Amino acid sequence: MKRAVVLLSGGLDSATTLALCLREGFESYALSFDYGQRHDVEILAARRVASSLGAREHRVAKIDLRVFGGSALTDEIPVPKNRTDQPGIPVTYVPARNTIFLSYALAWCEVLGAADIFIGVNAIDYSGYPDCRPAFISAFEELSTVATKAGVEGTRFRIHAPLLEMSKAKIIQKGSELGVDFSLTHSCYDPTPDLLACGECDSCRLRLEGFRAAGLVDPIRYAAK
Amino acid sequence: MKRAVVLLSGGLDSATTLALCLREGFESYALSFDYGQRHDVEILAARRVASSLGAREHRVAKIDLRVFGGSALTDEIPVPKNRTDQPGIPVTYVPARNTIFLSYALAWCEVLGAADIFIGVNAIDYSGYPDCRPAFISAFEELSTVATKAGVEGTRFRIHAPLLEMSKAKIIQKGSELGVDFSLTHSCYDPTPDLLACGECDSCRLRLEGFRAAGLVDPIRYAAK
Repeated sequence: MKRAVVLLSGGLDSATTLALCLREGFESYALSFDYGQRHDVEILAARRVASSLGAREHRVAKIDLRVFGGSALTDEIPVPKNRTDQPGIPVTYVPARNTIFLSYALAWCEVLGAADIFIGVNAIDYSGYPDCRPAFISAFEELSTVATKAGVEGTRFRIHAPLLEMSKAKIIQKGSELGVDFSLTHSCYDPTPDLLACGECDSCRLRLEGFRAAGLVDPIRYAAK
Repeated sequence: MKRAVVLLSGGLDSATTLALCLREGFESYALSFDYGQRHDVEILAARRVASSLGAREHRVAKIDLRVFGGSALTDEIPVPKNRTDQPGIPVTYVPARNTIFLSYALAWCEVLGAADIFIGVNAIDYSGYPDCRPAFISAFEELSTVATKAGVEGTRFRIHAPLLEMSKAKIIQKGSELGVDFSLTHSCYDPTPDLLACGECDSCRLRLEGFRAAGLVDPIRYAAK
């Protein structure tokens, strides 16, 4: 059975990505990061998702992204609410985050003898992050081959980004078809103290709009406004 | 003053690289990793080197490479001694290590507004590591531009690998010219319990041969045989 490493944040995109990886018949190794994000709730969601979908293993790498700062997701910069049509890349961008995450996935691939990495990035609803674009994915694929012992010995790594061209609504429909339990997922950048989703940050708004467009009900609870 | 991030392991290659970066007039930000390597002595050496050469700042990112295993440098695999002419990539190879290290350097660059990264990899005495080759360096440079907010906004990242074509002897000569105090550096993969270099691992042997070929005396102490 072929093995794959799947980046799993605990959000609905990565949950759907894990479901797609399993449907393609891969033995799936889920990888999450404890990177000093504001809330452990993401890691807890990832654990629930990995277990409910049937990942072969789930590991959490503790890494330090706060050492440099520079993002609303790791620093004390306030998360923006109800951002509409602001140009440019948002303050929730974490410098080089997906590059770091894929580097770790690549390391685990080498140890497992795997050649496939799944990442739930998305170019349509992508909030303006540069490391969610097709050009980034293909550049990392090329790097993988020259960067590794496995690559030198003939492995052709493949970075699968099956959500790249899907709308959020389409992702939600696909996840539903594959049996993803979205009540286990977490998307909010800025939950309330009792860990309810805020309903107002970029991530919550994309999620809510996605469920609406998909004609489905989002099963998680949101903070009362 | 232009800023650069310099990967600093505490060995003689990275110490010489920092000296070269400073000589080129960069304000230098040294970056080391606490990655569960067997001995903290590397981090201590990096601190001494950064301070003695005049890095503007030195940060140590705590990252978890043991989470996957797969290397004699992070696992319980014995470090080979007096390895001679064995083909292939040695067990001291750490999967995707330089990819991970450069990803972090890239993140710090974005926060600092820097476009230059210095890394002390070397293709001649390179011990067979795939992520010390020119093809790796240029693939990472290309990735950097597409991976980052800074790249999207026009920054052209440059990965400087000034030692790439130098022999170990040449590196030692160059470092000496630039005032690197090699007594502060640490190279051994497998020091004794009282932290003397073993004199027998790949790294010690390359170092000793380098000093011999350079006609210089290695100022560090080695374990008595």
